[in-house]
Amino acid sequence: MLVLSSPSGAGKTTIARRLMELEPAISLSVSVTTRQARPDERDGVDYHFIDQGEFERQKGAGELLEWAEVFDNGYGTPAAPVELALGEGRDILFDIDWQGARQLKAGKGDDVASVFILPPSASALGERLVRRAQDSKEVVARRMARASEEISHWEEYDYVVVNADVEESVRSIRAILAAERVRRARRVGLEEFVTRMRGEL
Amino acid sequence: MLVLSSPSGAGKTTIARRLMELEPAISLSVSVTTRQARPDERDGVDYHFIDQGEFERQKGAGELLEWAEVFDNGYGTPAAPVELALGEGRDILFDIDWQGARQLKAGKGDDVASVFILPPSASALGERLVRRAQDSKEVVARRMARASEEISHWEEYDYVVVNADVEESVRSIRAILAAERVRRARRVGLEEFVTRMRGEL
Repeated sequence: MLVLSSPSGAGKTTIARRLMELEPAISLSVSVTTRQARPDERDGVDYHFIDQGEFERQKGAGELLEWAEVFDNGYGTPAAPVELALGEGRDILFDIDWQGARQLKAGKGDDVASVFILPPSASALGERLVRRAQDSKEVVARRMARASEEISHWEEYDYVVVNADVEESVRSIRAILAAERVRRARRVGLEEFVTRMRGEL
Repeated sequence: MLVLSSPSGAGKTTIARRLMELEPAISLSVSVTTRQARPDERDGVDYHFIDQGEFERQKGAGELLEWAEVFDNGYGTPAAPVELALGEGRDILFDIDWQGARQLKAGKGDDVASVFILPPSASALGERLVRRAQDSKEVVARRMARASEEISHWEEYDYVVVNADVEESVRSIRAILAAERVRRARRVGLEEFVTRMRGEL
């Protein structure tokens, strides 16, 4: 389970899409949200768009692995597809914020590796937020304040990638994936393998 | 600081040489040893070959970062080149056993990432040890027993790589290097970077 978090505008979504192209074995966890879809977002691909009633029902029924409320909008991770992918030994990518990352770490601990993506500078972040034409000035200002808040949680993550160049950042995250796959704590069945080998020596 | 350990015959030296070809920015720590050089070994490249008196002197003078005695032969890591490389921000590769790895972890803690290389099977290990024509049968038998002992320490390492294919193992270790470089705990100066960015938002 690989968690990617970042302030809005740091390039996380571009990085996640590129990762999915290059790592076909990884599944992307599609979150539910109660917020309005943006023009370029597709239901079931970028998010599952649901209403507040359905969000409350899923929370109550224990169908969400983690959830958070941001600007009065609800976000959550459906548990079922995650359990299915883990059962099949597949890796899963989570594009969630620090609140979700913290809940996932608390619940799944050692199974989670987390990466915080930082913009290369405050001005780069500001430019990217302003360029998103569909957002009003007020929304941009609110996002800048929220970005600062989100960034304050960087120390809760295992890895920190400064996104100066998307391809370079994707290379770093693919290396993290490959390294985490050979971390001792993650290697299932290695104890039996070693015991058998020592018996044959 | 990247530590590679493995039982003799698991292919560690081949992997270390290939890594040095592919990662020119990394320095290899050349150990001192009191044992005889094998025909293919060069002084100053594979080891610094020294006598017992000089080994004792270096230990006493605090010139060794770690040392171990194996089959009555002394092995140790000279501290000076390591401190120099670290001061210049270069990575260093250590080809040492579990005793050395443990001392390095104790002394340098967070600065050390350690990798244990396992052979794919007991029979593969046995074949490689027998093929080393310069070693007598008695030496081979002793090495098999020692291999089993060395393997018993695999759980003290951060990563475990099963060396079924050298190129695949080298890829795993290069990924570990790249991932460790973006580990939060290793990133010097990131706190100031984040504080400044948040001030500008």
